[in-house]
Amino acid sequence: MEKPRELNSKNEKFGEWYLQILEKAELMDDRYNVKGFYIVRPWLMNIIDKVYKIWEDELNKKGHKKVSFPTVIPIENFEKEKEHVEGFSPEVFWITEGGDTKFERKIALRPTSETAFYSIYPLWIRSHEDLPLKLYQSCSVFRYETKATKPLLRAREFIWIEAHNAYSNKEEALNQIKEDMNITTKVSEKLGIPFLFFKRPEWDKFTGAVFSFASDTILPDKKRLQYSTSHYLGQNFSKPFDIKFSDEDEKEKFVYQTCYGPGISRMIASIISLHSDDFGLILPFYLAPVQIVIVPILKKGREKEILEYCEKIKEKLKGYEVKIDNRDKGVGSKFYDWELKGVPVRFDIGGNETDKKEVCLFRRDKREKSFIKLEEITENIKIIEKEIEENLKKTASKNFETAMSETETTEELKEKVKEGFVKIPFCSRATDGENCAEKIKDICEIAGTLYPEENPPENKKCIVCGKEAKVWVYACRSY
Amino acid sequence: MEKPRELNSKNEKFGEWYLQILEKAELMDDRYNVKGFYIVRPWLMNIIDKVYKIWEDELNKKGHKKVSFPTVIPIENFEKEKEHVEGFSPEVFWITEGGDTKFERKIALRPTSETAFYSIYPLWIRSHEDLPLKLYQSCSVFRYETKATKPLLRAREFIWIEAHNAYSNKEEALNQIKEDMNITTKVSEKLGIPFLFFKRPEWDKFTGAVFSFASDTILPDKKRLQYSTSHYLGQNFSKPFDIKFSDEDEKEKFVYQTCYGPGISRMIASIISLHSDDFGLILPFYLAPVQIVIVPILKKGREKEILEYCEKIKEKLKGYEVKIDNRDKGVGSKFYDWELKGVPVRFDIGGNETDKKEVCLFRRDKREKSFIKLEEITENIKIIEKEIEENLKKTASKNFETAMSETETTEELKEKVKEGFVKIPFCSRATDGENCAEKIKDICEIAGTLYPEENPPENKKCIVCGKEAKVWVYACRSY
Repeated sequence: MEKPRELNSKNEKFGEWYLQILEKAELMDDRYNVKGFYIVRPWLMNIIDKVYKIWEDELNKKGHKKVSFPTVIPIENFEKEKEHVEGFSPEVFWITEGGDTKFERKIALRPTSETAFYSIYPLWIRSHEDLPLKLYQSCSVFRYETKATKPLLRAREFIWIEAHNAYSNKEEALNQIKEDMNITTKVSEKLGIPFLFFKRPEWDKFTGAVFSFASDTILPDKKRLQYSTSHYLGQNFSKPFDIKFSDEDEKEKFVYQTCYGPGISRMIASIISLHSDDFGLILPFYLAPVQIVIVPILKKGREKEILEYCEKIKEKLKGYEVKIDNRDKGVGSKFYDWELKGVPVRFDIGGNETDKKEVCLFRRDKREKSFIKLEEITENIKIIEKEIEENLKKTASKNFETAMSETETTEELKEKVKEGFVKIPFCSRATDGENCAEKIKDICEIAGTLYPEENPPENKKCIVCGKEAKVWVYACRSY
Repeated sequence: MEKPRELNSKNEKFGEWYLQILEKAELMDDRYNVKGFYIVRPWLMNIIDKVYKIWEDELNKKGHKKVSFPTVIPIENFEKEKEHVEGFSPEVFWITEGGDTKFERKIALRPTSETAFYSIYPLWIRSHEDLPLKLYQSCSVFRYETKATKPLLRAREFIWIEAHNAYSNKEEALNQIKEDMNITTKVSEKLGIPFLFFKRPEWDKFTGAVFSFASDTILPDKKRLQYSTSHYLGQNFSKPFDIKFSDEDEKEKFVYQTCYGPGISRMIASIISLHSDDFGLILPFYLAPVQIVIVPILKKGREKEILEYCEKIKEKLKGYEVKIDNRDKGVGSKFYDWELKGVPVRFDIGGNETDKKEVCLFRRDKREKSFIKLEEITENIKIIEKEIEENLKKTASKNFETAMSETETTEELKEKVKEGFVKIPFCSRATDGENCAEKIKDICEIAGTLYPEENPPENKKCIVCGKEAKVWVYACRSY
């Protein structure tokens, strides 16, 4: 066991800080010998399982059902939707051999599973009674990223949920986008991740989609991170995949579809990045693998007595994940470890505390100590649990708000975009806009227009071409 | 929705019955267009998640920690352990391209992850304080099976848990095998799956292992199904992978290792096959996605009243997964559906029940009806829940016992092996035994010797070569 060193400054050197916290807090290991593939260590695995459960519970509540599709997709499936195959081909890992056998047609390691699900949907959807069909899976996907890879943020294997929905009409399908937004909102609020929900510009949508929507947060380096997307697919997939149903009028019709992809990897990256400081991670109780750590500060001759008192405290806290850290190492080094890992509450228990039947309580979020009587522990912990959750949310929201600005000149945009999202008047979200976005691509990207739609700008000019502005868009730098 | 047809006889035509139940109960779909890859549908997915949780809870209790390793393994890792690469090469799916780039060295889709875990263990294990290291992951693995594939039983992608453990000495490592056996026993007993724990013969061990152990059950066609394995690896991997630690005497030593692979896919196949009849699946409460289904039998003019009574019953059963089936289809067809899917308890609620404030209760396991007063529902359900669990276990155990026999002649063996396990005296579990096993391979396989070890045969002759018998082995036909 190495003694953890201090981290770099999160706000000044986010890139370094991020890799350091993954290593020092034993969250991930980036030394696996295939580029862009990373190992999740036990502490983070525990958190990931909890985050998955939060998402899945919300999806289940809304009538989505969990399934599991194969990890592989034959090339024939991809080729059915032209835009989709063109968009994804450069990113696909291909399996071409099994044992000594070379395959006649190659098989993809799924980069996303539209073409797996939709190849089966015609077998499951016959009549309007089979609709809506709302299925999802929790899985890894694989993309042969050519950009620089980074654990959780841009990896060649990452984890997500993908929901694939089919409806008898356009209206219900479009409503699903709103439901997706509500689910994203509910989960993001729970996890304390502030975000904006965007309709992506025409030129930046998912290949095969009619419209794309996404939830974006801002990381401490003021760059946008997209962590969840929803796509309205219309009949773009149902036609080539022949997904039809007989309607109440007994006519055969193609279904309308949406898909939804909450990115668990990026959500986890957000939790790590937003709820933390230069001492390490800060976890709310509901995510912490250990919620309360008790560090005995042993005095010679009183070891047994102090440890017994620690056990007594633990006994009082049934229902919480409590750990007594009696490892054979220095107290300071233990403090470091648990601060790095984000355990929300620490009790330091020495001779004094044992005598006075109290605990010295260290709150990880505020890094403050206080003393509490043993008999008041349970009610205090309940209060502190809520306070930490609220405090993390408040801090994240405050940072997110300071990352918002507005301008009407490219000069100002250049500076302001270094701080986060900049709201700007823009000529169009389609072709004209694409030309304008291209012209400022060295400064920023266009995340999109807000959804639900804002009132359009009045008497404003596009910040790039100077033509009448039709939409407000949000500029930013991106992951 | 097709109306479900009756199934074939489970005991007479198990193969057909098995595929039928997967289809009719909407458990899996075998129509995906890559051979040997199958789709898990919502009903079974829910059960799988529960079975995973039961295993993981037991592993966690014993100090195993969950991690996640990449799905891919570079060929260099495989090549480090000679026997291992030879054993697995014919079964590996190889990734050779990403986008348009052809890789210089191919990458495996993991068939098992020893060579992924053990490439990192030298970075995590430095001193005796880092030991024991007990990590596991819950994941898919991939094998290019050349034998006939069958959902859950022999698939090219299947799900399991794999635990990879490292110890400072041989004794602790061997104790891990016993702990694995205890965990397997606990979970198997919970799930009502009777099994024998074998030490596999020398000639049938995992490639790279010193000894292999396995848990085998018997399916209704009287064939053995191996669903969990434990391997004592000694230092076979720690030497090529250079996994060393400095011991308390400050000397550098190689670790001793074990690995453990509970097969979730095959466990699920066992649950389906053992707890079921010709009408479909039978689930215990703790696995059932719906525990109680209420089927309203509507009488004209009394619809509202009857449905309200159904709601009232549901209200009484908070804490249980209860579903009121008010789909627009015939009552008989609803009965079929829920019997197929194995819902443990059904209430049929018509005018009579509504008048009398009672329920007509149908127990799926015994297919018996009884009438219960509304106010007595909760306590009755509690009793029935336990009874169903016990009944399923009892039935499975009884069938397993009838699958056991013993003989000392190959003539009898030929017949008896059609009924399950046959205990036979055998010359050896090593080379001589391999020769003998080879000679009777058209009749049966040798599952191994029991573990813990039975008393050796006294004054018996090997059933094949006639030499002095040194061990009792168990012959069977296998999946």
